[in-house]
Amino acid sequence: MGIVLQGGTVVTAAECCRTDVRIEGETVAALGSDIRQSGDEVRDVTGCLLVPGGIDAHTHFDLPIGTMATADDFVSGSRAALSGGTTTFIDYATQFKGETLRQGMANWHKRAAKGCYVDYGFHMAITDWNEAVTAELPELVRKDGVTSYKMYMAYKGSLQVADDVLFQAMQALDRLGAILCVHCENGDLIVELARQELENGHCGPRYHPLSRPITVELEAVQRIIKIAETAKSPVFIVHLSSGAALEAVREAKARGQAVYAETCPQYLVLDEERYLLPGFESAKFVLSPPLRDKENQTMLWNGLKQGVLDTVATDHCSFNFVGQKELGRSDFSRIPNGIPGVEHRLALLYSYGVLAGRISLNDWVMRCAAQPAKLFGLYPKKGTIAPGSDADIVVWDPTATGMITAKTQQQRVDYTPYEGIKTQGAVRQVYLRGQLAFDEGTILAAPDRGQYLKRKPLMK
Amino acid sequence: MGIVLQGGTVVTAAECCRTDVRIEGETVAALGSDIRQSGDEVRDVTGCLLVPGGIDAHTHFDLPIGTMATADDFVSGSRAALSGGTTTFIDYATQFKGETLRQGMANWHKRAAKGCYVDYGFHMAITDWNEAVTAELPELVRKDGVTSYKMYMAYKGSLQVADDVLFQAMQALDRLGAILCVHCENGDLIVELARQELENGHCGPRYHPLSRPITVELEAVQRIIKIAETAKSPVFIVHLSSGAALEAVREAKARGQAVYAETCPQYLVLDEERYLLPGFESAKFVLSPPLRDKENQTMLWNGLKQGVLDTVATDHCSFNFVGQKELGRSDFSRIPNGIPGVEHRLALLYSYGVLAGRISLNDWVMRCAAQPAKLFGLYPKKGTIAPGSDADIVVWDPTATGMITAKTQQQRVDYTPYEGIKTQGAVRQVYLRGQLAFDEGTILAAPDRGQYLKRKPLMK
Amino acid sequence: MGIVLQGGTVVTAAECCRTDVRIEGETVAALGSDIRQSGDEVRDVTGCLLVPGGIDAHTHFDLPIGTMATADDFVSGSRAALSGGTTTFIDYATQFKGETLRQGMANWHKRAAKGCYVDYGFHMAITDWNEAVTAELPELVRKDGVTSYKMYMAYKGSLQVADDVLFQAMQALDRLGAILCVHCENGDLIVELARQELENGHCGPRYHPLSRPITVELEAVQRIIKIAETAKSPVFIVHLSSGAALEAVREAKARGQAVYAETCPQYLVLDEERYLLPGFESAKFVLSPPLRDKENQTMLWNGLKQGVLDTVATDHCSFNFVGQKELGRSDFSRIPNGIPGVEHRLALLYSYGVLAGRISLNDWVMRCAAQPAKLFGLYPKKGTIAPGSDADIVVWDPTATGMITAKTQQQRVDYTPYEGIKTQGAVRQVYLRGQLAFDEGTILAAPDRGQYLKRKPLMK
Amino acid sequence: MGIVLQGGTVVTAAECCRTDVRIEGETVAALGSDIRQSGDEVRDVTGCLLVPGGIDAHTHFDLPIGTMATADDFVSGSRAALSGGTTTFIDYATQFKGETLRQGMANWHKRAAKGCYVDYGFHMAITDWNEAVTAELPELVRKDGVTSYKMYMAYKGSLQVADDVLFQAMQALDRLGAILCVHCENGDLIVELARQELENGHCGPRYHPLSRPITVELEAVQRIIKIAETAKSPVFIVHLSSGAALEAVREAKARGQAVYAETCPQYLVLDEERYLLPGFESAKFVLSPPLRDKENQTMLWNGLKQGVLDTVATDHCSFNFVGQKELGRSDFSRIPNGIPGVEHRLALLYSYGVLAGRISLNDWVMRCAAQPAKLFGLYPKKGTIAPGSDADIVVWDPTATGMITAKTQQQRVDYTPYEGIKTQGAVRQVYLRGQLAFDEGTILAAPDRGQYLKRKPLMK
Repeated sequence: MGIVLQGGTVVTAAECCRTDVRIEGETVAALGSDIRQSGDEVRDVTGCLLVPGGIDAHTHFDLPIGTMATADDFVSGSRAALSGGTTTFIDYATQFKGETLRQGMANWHKRAAKGCYVDYGFHMAITDWNEAVTAELPELVRKDGVTSYKMYMAYKGSLQVADDVLFQAMQALDRLGAILCVHCENGDLIVELARQELENGHCGPRYHPLSRPITVELEAVQRIIKIAETAKSPVFIVHLSSGAALEAVREAKARGQAVYAETCPQYLVLDEERYLLPGFESAKFVLSPPLRDKENQTMLWNGLKQGVLDTVATDHCSFNFVGQKELGRSDFSRIPNGIPGVEHRLALLYSYGVLAGRISLNDWVMRCAAQPAKLFGLYPKKGTIAPGSDADIVVWDPTATGMITAKTQQQRVDYTPYEGIKTQGAVRQVYLRGQLAFDEGTILAAPDRGQYLKRKPLMK
Repeated sequence: MGIVLQGGTVVTAAECCRTDVRIEGETVAALGSDIRQSGDEVRDVTGCLLVPGGIDAHTHFDLPIGTMATADDFVSGSRAALSGGTTTFIDYATQFKGETLRQGMANWHKRAAKGCYVDYGFHMAITDWNEAVTAELPELVRKDGVTSYKMYMAYKGSLQVADDVLFQAMQALDRLGAILCVHCENGDLIVELARQELENGHCGPRYHPLSRPITVELEAVQRIIKIAETAKSPVFIVHLSSGAALEAVREAKARGQAVYAETCPQYLVLDEERYLLPGFESAKFVLSPPLRDKENQTMLWNGLKQGVLDTVATDHCSFNFVGQKELGRSDFSRIPNGIPGVEHRLALLYSYGVLAGRISLNDWVMRCAAQPAKLFGLYPKKGTIAPGSDADIVVWDPTATGMITAKTQQQRVDYTPYEGIKTQGAVRQVYLRGQLAFDEGTILAAPDRGQYLKRKPLMK
Repeated sequence: MGIVLQGGTVVTAAECCRTDVRIEGETVAALGSDIRQSGDEVRDVTGCLLVPGGIDAHTHFDLPIGTMATADDFVSGSRAALSGGTTTFIDYATQFKGETLRQGMANWHKRAAKGCYVDYGFHMAITDWNEAVTAELPELVRKDGVTSYKMYMAYKGSLQVADDVLFQAMQALDRLGAILCVHCENGDLIVELARQELENGHCGPRYHPLSRPITVELEAVQRIIKIAETAKSPVFIVHLSSGAALEAVREAKARGQAVYAETCPQYLVLDEERYLLPGFESAKFVLSPPLRDKENQTMLWNGLKQGVLDTVATDHCSFNFVGQKELGRSDFSRIPNGIPGVEHRLALLYSYGVLAGRISLNDWVMRCAAQPAKLFGLYPKKGTIAPGSDADIVVWDPTATGMITAKTQQQRVDYTPYEGIKTQGAVRQVYLRGQLAFDEGTILAAPDRGQYLKRKPLMK
Repeated sequence: MGIVLQGGTVVTAAECCRTDVRIEGETVAALGSDIRQSGDEVRDVTGCLLVPGGIDAHTHFDLPIGTMATADDFVSGSRAALSGGTTTFIDYATQFKGETLRQGMANWHKRAAKGCYVDYGFHMAITDWNEAVTAELPELVRKDGVTSYKMYMAYKGSLQVADDVLFQAMQALDRLGAILCVHCENGDLIVELARQELENGHCGPRYHPLSRPITVELEAVQRIIKIAETAKSPVFIVHLSSGAALEAVREAKARGQAVYAETCPQYLVLDEERYLLPGFESAKFVLSPPLRDKENQTMLWNGLKQGVLDTVATDHCSFNFVGQKELGRSDFSRIPNGIPGVEHRLALLYSYGVLAGRISLNDWVMRCAAQPAKLFGLYPKKGTIAPGSDADIVVWDPTATGMITAKTQQQRVDYTPYEGIKTQGAVRQVYLRGQLAFDEGTILAAPDRGQYLKRKPLMK
């Protein structure tokens, strides 16, 4: 009564192994030859790679921004994830000013309850740190399985917190086995730089990156590393975008400090020339940190290969060009920040990483599935194909070719920053906990298929 | 009618030259042989070094702290400076919250009016940055000759300013040809670390350095470097104390950035073992940043030799042990921060720098006189012995030996952190603008001898 | 007719998985639950770790040195390897001056033909580089499967080669898909330093490390990195011993250069204090590079964890204290260089790495088995436990405790440098290609059990 | 009976001082106002800078190369030096294979005896190191005043020496208070790279730099730094050409090591685009190390400003394009290496350094006169304008403009690599030991005016 995937090559963080895989119920039962049991159904996956379902540890679905929300909610976002081979995501639930963490969590569970095609967990972004919040943490960590949190060094006046808050939060979380994720850009400097650009009549989207230069990211990365060192606590840096910041992480790791870092496909594949597009077109690329130049890309790929960068996530935060991005037509600083991407992470990393010789097949799986699972308390349930693990399996056809375009995407947003980019290799099928959820372009799973995941503490 | 100093060796930032020096009026008229004019008085300085009067670019005389003030005022502080071979100091006038810069300046001129034995200038510490303050700057710079300012990254709740203020101030000052000096320690972290020590019952002065570890200084130094780079403005780092911070400055200079740094004799000569003294004795060494270990000393000496460190100043800020330091008997964080030292800078640097082979005679003059003069707009009036320069000349006897002790010091404070330290080389005479102001232990100058110095912009 | 190992936890380079393992013939047939087939024998390994047989990629068995040879030959060396959980080793066959590579290979095959308990391959050390040798390479690489070579920057007058030879060899090997391993110490400087020590009457073994300081290793490591960069070829650095050399490798990897490095248990566990032992005792620790201080150990462990160091091998090169080491009683430079260790690598790394929290279980397997297999062309046949791989499996009892002592060792040498060192965790059984070869202290394999391994090119 | 230069500004390594200068006999008698004595002649230099005569510490005049010699001999070379404001040069006397040092010295004294317009000293290049040579050193150092020597890491088969020779020589020289200068390029690699270029049919001069890439220089610089560190001896690196090598020197100085370095005007002003010139034109720029790109120039200027680079010399080694450079028409490796430049150093550094804001006036004098004097034992006789120093004074007209061209040069070579380059500032007069030797374009000195200088040991 199981399923045997026959003829494929299993790729995990360390192995490439031609072997059959037997699924029983929701989990992987066995790998090997002659593992078929009576009653099993055999499915041929000859020529395909079998990779662990992707884990996107950085999404923002249904995120309220003022009076609007991101274009993708959990239904459309998770459907896009599934179709792109991502079977788990971790979204940033947010406690807004004045809320308890519990209220923030409840708000996000409500959002996810509208439907979710794949499994998910929550990080919790904290914007209002105080004693009451501290008191809520133990239960959230231990009972709700929320073992990672987030604070912002940018977005002055709304999300940004002070250094003492970062220090206190790191230590409090570390005592509970949880970890702090940090958005590293110096918000004070950004406000000043943006103000100066606008004062000079520089209002278009091309001035967005000038208000957030690499020095602004590097400063914050260096600072968070020193705060963490002083606090004797681990820290996770989200969406690292520049080679200089990468070198700061490398230096910290070289000293033996527990610093982890994530980058995103956009920093690996897109570059700052997009800000030179005519008219308001560049608004499609307004995200923070902004895109950098090609030399930074090379450094980031190298950092991924060497494990200075731990994970690749999308920071999916989609806004429609029409009606949303457009709000900043006369002032780049009012363009909602963020781009879609949850659907295309695996294909982009495979095409421009593996096939370009920048990373290995194992690196691909390591950075997109295994390492996020390990760092964020989901391993070995998620992140690998091994006996006992959830049977979240992507059947990957290395011979398929494609082109990313908004016309055919599952993401519910009116553009994609990767428009026209060609890919090689594609998702043929996706199994989620043992059931075929996506097959040759068709969504088979029900919209309530995804489960909430209580996560374990950081594996140091 | 001039004076000829005969038989000495003139030491400047670059030369060691056996030559006579002729003084006429307030300035140096000539160097050479056969320069005596009829009517000149010849004074024999055979065997002595003639060095430019020292410039201590970092003092706090008569600084009000709550309801008290530092032990030394301008009278006693400048007398101590003179007796130690320092003929110019630059004190930190301070604008306190709610004051205009002009009020702050007026307050400090009033303090100096009580009497000052040597020449002096003012930097201006700004604690309340706003548009009105910005509007005051041009006049202060151009008319008052206040071409350097200071802000604090530490002392949260009183002096500490935010990153955007640092950024704005740097740019505003740079436009005027002035420069920002910065106290680099992360005040947020210090508050947290001190609180944790006290919570653990660690109340004695030995816990002071644990609340201000090197990471806290390094973080702030890295940050100010990145803020300055982003602002495209120069910056001057005061009282740099650690090798790690030094390396951050070196790296910035290597990239061509205009970063300048000062260290102090206490970081070169004293070390953190002083915090292990029994009882409350360590309070005599409570200053910020705190003393570091011997390895850091070696790195700082090396940095001086190579010019990564630009200047040596004392940060003289004296508090009596009895009645002042004692205020923190039950809580180290309430011990007033600072130590005396304006009197002993030249002797300490000569004994433990020049004679120990760590720096050359030229380095000694460069770091203690020439470079502060150049950076702070006093050169060539001050900082050298050359035709036309003020005849501020120290007759230095390299054969004299001494021992620093509170009993015999000019400083009006009840202890010295250098108690019992032996020195070699000593001031025999000091000429201030052509007049013999100190001779063999006797003060000859009147207490109103010193003049206020309007300074020129930074020599980049 | 297979074997099922039941109840253990399989540890590979990336996974820790509670699963049964089914062996059929020489290879792993399946991992999972319910994988037993009729006729299978079930063996209980509850509570044990199942780890891939260790790969020691750096041994010198039966190495001729002048008129003598190392204490261990292939028989005793491979028996010791087996009993310590190492199922594959790669020995350095050597072409001596005047020989062809083919002759060198033949000599070593003859040595191995006396008996070998485990599988083995050969690197080939080249000491006489010329056109004829170049012409031999293609066949050796492609037919004999010798895909790695070695040259020495030390041992002037015998093994040492010049920089142009290193450059030529690297390029020639790279064209064939092979790689050059290099002993990195500056032989010129060593000769001078040793001569100076001896001239000063410093003849004892404690002066050995003074003749080979870290600068001598670092110089050679920096040089080989630049030679490789100029040659646009990969390079593998053997027995890296110091933190400074490690940082040079890190910097090269950061630039994206294909530099690989190995360290040894002795540099991780022993330190230079051993050279202060009385009398001639220190001769037991005379190896090259010599032992370093504890700070270097910390840096090496950190380098292993981060993958700056790729592999751990023993450089097993054993000489008896009596009759061999003693040859240098009156002149440390005549003490034969090298120590035994092939038997204790896994236990030392487990005890002082994994249990001490310096590396993970996965790192242990990665550095001792998986990565040497991948780099030296043995993967996936060796280095993992996966369907289709050789069933080289160590059943590791994590609860066992032991103490290393020469009395009980399998190594045929009259001492061990690890005498008295306690270990935790021990080999219970070893399977070599599906057969139980070692069981609870008893060697079950025949002395001709080992097979020669033709290796594939480097996996870049 | 003296001379008073009136109305100028004296520029030294540390000062810019408007003052008169009185010369009596061969030396400076006084600086100041009212220094004129009865009988003195007053010469007006209003508006001019008075700078110490330049010291070019790296020239090759009348150097024999096979059957020919460099285009400039001591007569023409020293005349060019004088007309460019250089009043002292230090030429590299060479001991060729089989000669004693004494023979080498005698050969060079003979060359200089043909005539020399300015003062000069000799470094001694050693190519044949042995015990007899070692025995000659004390007399050469102490009696002949040859306190600096040179060895080559390049030019395999002729000048290149092995690492143990470098090590021995450094130590032997250090014991005598002398220093070793080193040409840092890896000769082994150059031979290989040149051979490969030629094998590929790349015979033109544009392939010269490809045979000597930065890695080849950097390797040798790193190596000599480690050899010197191991030998506990100082070392001087000649003609450093790349930013990467500069950073290696910076890092060594940061550790406190006594490493000194020189660069040349060609590396500051010319760049590798010259190798793209059509035909054989690029041969005019064939020197070693070769020209680098503009980014390297920026790094070198920065290194000069910060004192990581100590001195600027020309490595003047001139070959005519016709008849000499042409010897390598069919093989770039046979083009004689070297370019002229002794005539244009001061003007190039002033125009592209001082006026471009990259270095200060003081830096200009420091790097071109004061620091070479100090490092090579000529200070304070040479390198400054101070009482008692030789009256070697350049009267520099900052308002003059010019253009470098072979047509008007004093150098006796048929081209200049700086052809057409515009300069600002020019030599008006040159005093050599008190006598006007060059005036408004006219050579006044006799061809035997120059004196041999016995030099003192290195000033550490």
